Amino acid sequence: MPTVKFNTALIVGAGSGLSAALARVLATEGIKVALAARSTGDLAGLAQEIGGATFTCDASKRADVDKLFADLDAGFGAPEIVIYNPSYRTRGPLIELDPAEVEKSLMVSAFGGFLVAQQAVKRMLPKKHGCVVFTGASASVKGFALSAPFAMGKFALRGLAQSLSRELHPQGIHVAHVIVDGGIKSERRPEPPGKTASMLNPTSIAATYMHIIHQPHSAWSSEVEVRPWVETF
Amino acid sequence: MPTVKFNTALIVGAGSGLSAALARVLATEGIKVALAARSTGDLAGLAQEIGGATFTCDASKRADVDKLFADLDAGFGAPEIVIYNPSYRTRGPLIELDPAEVEKSLMVSAFGGFLVAQQAVKRMLPKKHGCVVFTGASASVKGFALSAPFAMGKFALRGLAQSLSRELHPQGIHVAHVIVDGGIKSERRPEPPGKTASMLNPTSIAATYMHIIHQPHSAWSSEVEVRPWVETF
Amino acid sequence: MPTVKFNTALIVGAGSGLSAALARVLATEGIKVALAARSTGDLAGLAQEIGGATFTCDASKRADVDKLFADLDAGFGAPEIVIYNPSYRTRGPLIELDPAEVEKSLMVSAFGGFLVAQQAVKRMLPKKHGCVVFTGASASVKGFALSAPFAMGKFALRGLAQSLSRELHPQGIHVAHVIVDGGIKSERRPEPPGKTASMLNPTSIAATYMHIIHQPHSAWSSEVEVRPWVETF
Amino acid sequence: MPTVKFNTALIVGAGSGLSAALARVLATEGIKVALAARSTGDLAGLAQEIGGATFTCDASKRADVDKLFADLDAGFGAPEIVIYNPSYRTRGPLIELDPAEVEKSLMVSAFGGFLVAQQAVKRMLPKKHGCVVFTGASASVKGFALSAPFAMGKFALRGLAQSLSRELHPQGIHVAHVIVDGGIKSERRPEPPGKTASMLNPTSIAATYMHIIHQPHSAWSSEVEVRPWVETF
Repeated sequence: MPTVKFNTALIVGAGSGLSAALARVLATEGIKVALAARSTGDLAGLAQEIGGATFTCDASKRADVDKLFADLDAGFGAPEIVIYNPSYRTRGPLIELDPAEVEKSLMVSAFGGFLVAQQAVKRMLPKKHGCVVFTGASASVKGFALSAPFAMGKFALRGLAQSLSRELHPQGIHVAHVIVDGGIKSERRPEPPGKTASMLNPTSIAATYMHIIHQPHSAWSSEVEVRPWVETF
Repeated sequence: MPTVKFNTALIVGAGSGLSAALARVLATEGIKVALAARSTGDLAGLAQEIGGATFTCDASKRADVDKLFADLDAGFGAPEIVIYNPSYRTRGPLIELDPAEVEKSLMVSAFGGFLVAQQAVKRMLPKKHGCVVFTGASASVKGFALSAPFAMGKFALRGLAQSLSRELHPQGIHVAHVIVDGGIKSERRPEPPGKTASMLNPTSIAATYMHIIHQPHSAWSSEVEVRPWVETF
Repeated sequence: MPTVKFNTALIVGAGSGLSAALARVLATEGIKVALAARSTGDLAGLAQEIGGATFTCDASKRADVDKLFADLDAGFGAPEIVIYNPSYRTRGPLIELDPAEVEKSLMVSAFGGFLVAQQAVKRMLPKKHGCVVFTGASASVKGFALSAPFAMGKFALRGLAQSLSRELHPQGIHVAHVIVDGGIKSERRPEPPGKTASMLNPTSIAATYMHIIHQPHSAWSSEVEVRPWVETF
Repeated sequence: MPTVKFNTALIVGAGSGLSAALARVLATEGIKVALAARSTGDLAGLAQEIGGATFTCDASKRADVDKLFADLDAGFGAPEIVIYNPSYRTRGPLIELDPAEVEKSLMVSAFGGFLVAQQAVKRMLPKKHGCVVFTGASASVKGFALSAPFAMGKFALRGLAQSLSRELHPQGIHVAHVIVDGGIKSERRPEPPGKTASMLNPTSIAATYMHIIHQPHSAWSSEVEVRPWVETF
């Protein structure tokens, strides 16, 4: 079984534990990694560690995304793998929600995914080669009470992923949606004592992303969920 | 079985065949109907026929929605039934889509639903009485190729509906999402000759909306799909 | 909108609160009702009340179902409406389940639905007229822990309903699957005191069945769920 | 990230291209493989190649499954990985289906999965270690016209898998359901000329099974679908 080869990757929404884990495993495989985030101050250490580049970008802004890809074109090269992680959530009873925050949730969680995918796919199509992975959540498939804005953004991102899978798979571009169903362990958000693997280990999630990315085109997954063994669902 | 009683209804996105059919059946039951649309020029005849009122409102604009409900408060009264129909779609390959159109699809199809629901529910909660119905489409549950913007908007609206069902049902407010899976027959878009009932009859759809609206709270539906007998699915 | 007309109905699995409520509302509309159950001793009163007939039938047994329809042919007439309610459940940890009980769950909940639908549809097809409704449960769409046998039976019944909808709708026969998501109130199983409408009222469920049965073929529903306003989902 | 270690595997329904591919990749990782099938005549070559053992077993028969596991206990050892592949399908219009064939579809596709899982999990629970993978199909999530029996069996198997995931994950046993959405390439069923990767390569599917099997318990998948890049869905 020939392994699909990739040379470059872009992680949008870098900064969280998942993005860092993805960056590290991509680098381990010899893939050059670009990290894009609204604020890149915290990414310098990671970028140095993996020999990657950082880019400042608010993915919900068209001008920012256009500039990101122009900058990539000018040096880094077009990314063959693109992972879209950003989301924005606000919670509360319907009548207390701030409409500006709800709009922001749609823009960051879903519209930014469209903007990034559009620029990325423009560069992938001529080579009929590339992989785009969108990061979903429990709220991608279930709208929870008091959490309408997050559900709206994540449902919309899933709709985007489905449409793009159907459009782009036959053109050689793999599009996948990963539902991360549970809390991700991080330094700021450690597991409760005595509860081993009760939260998602970012390195474990990253392994599933890498499996998807390496799937040969005879057997592509469009949607995969991962959750801790003790998670209720 | 006691029938739930309603006195007032608001249809947002009035103008299409479905809205007119809904307006007529609501009026037949003695319910006072407000029709809101971006442009109300075409609604004068319908409003006169059913003894209803018209309101100009772009539901994707917060100021418009605020004004709509202020105007309703000032005379018509708070609507006990609210039906949200607007959607905006643009089609094409990902790389040819206009980002402004994609944003508009999210704003009209989903964000407007939030804005209207928020204002409506503020007025329903004190009475623990009301019904909100969102109009979905095939694209609410399946993202079709070349139709990502519509899928994004309709998926997001479904996420909103699910969250609101879970939040508001225990507070006495019924929230439902109706998936209209097929083309709706209208004067501008008649059925192909010889293909009886190959398209959805708006009056038939309206009958299902009315059934949902009248369901007693012991057995509420959250999601119902309707499609023509000959529709492939 | 012309109303679809039906003259005869068969309720299989009669006896529960839902079946009795369905029988009563069908009778109210002038529809002649046949009640079939493994044991018909308890049905005499209901049959007399509604002027209906009773038939003894274990729906999971082919010979019984063949005999039921032969008996119907001989006098009552072919049913134009068929409602399939039976299910059998057994609960417990996987390793404690009795295989014979698991098999019975599949046979009663799903295989019997096939047997009944096959005989019913044979008689409906020549007239291109009829409606078959299968009763589902929460377990039709979610496999709960410690309840694998019920999930197996109810999932299978839903697969049957979906296949038959796709096959038979274009032939004029309406097939629907109703997910009853919650406990049904009955004399043996009353609501907790002070918890109004915390359980499904069988008459309320029956109203939704009747709505489905009366839908014109321009706008048929294939799947509808109903649950109490306070039910968690 | 520590890799989960397995020493023994059982593939039920061995014989198809997928089973052989799974057997080979398991053997490559040093895992001892037992192959069980109704008829093992064709498996001798594969068993010799991978150093595995063969067992005759009709998985839909309780006595056969009991004997299979007794035989495994007596020599091979309890399998830590179990993969359930068997299915039986019959197609046609509802009224032409042979009830015996429909029953067989439920028994082979779903009941056998229960029997095998029950015996396997009995042996896994004391060690809180094991992985059970059920093989699904497109028909696991969509009931196609003229294919009710296959949908019934595959829906039921999915219900089983969901219930067991929820019961067994917190006890350290990973249960997954893989939806193989497309035709699997084999010697008997080659790809159309000029249609590269238009069918699923069994080795590619097996790679996804192995990924699931190796997932650490912090990030388990319960359901994964795989399909060829050109498959319509």
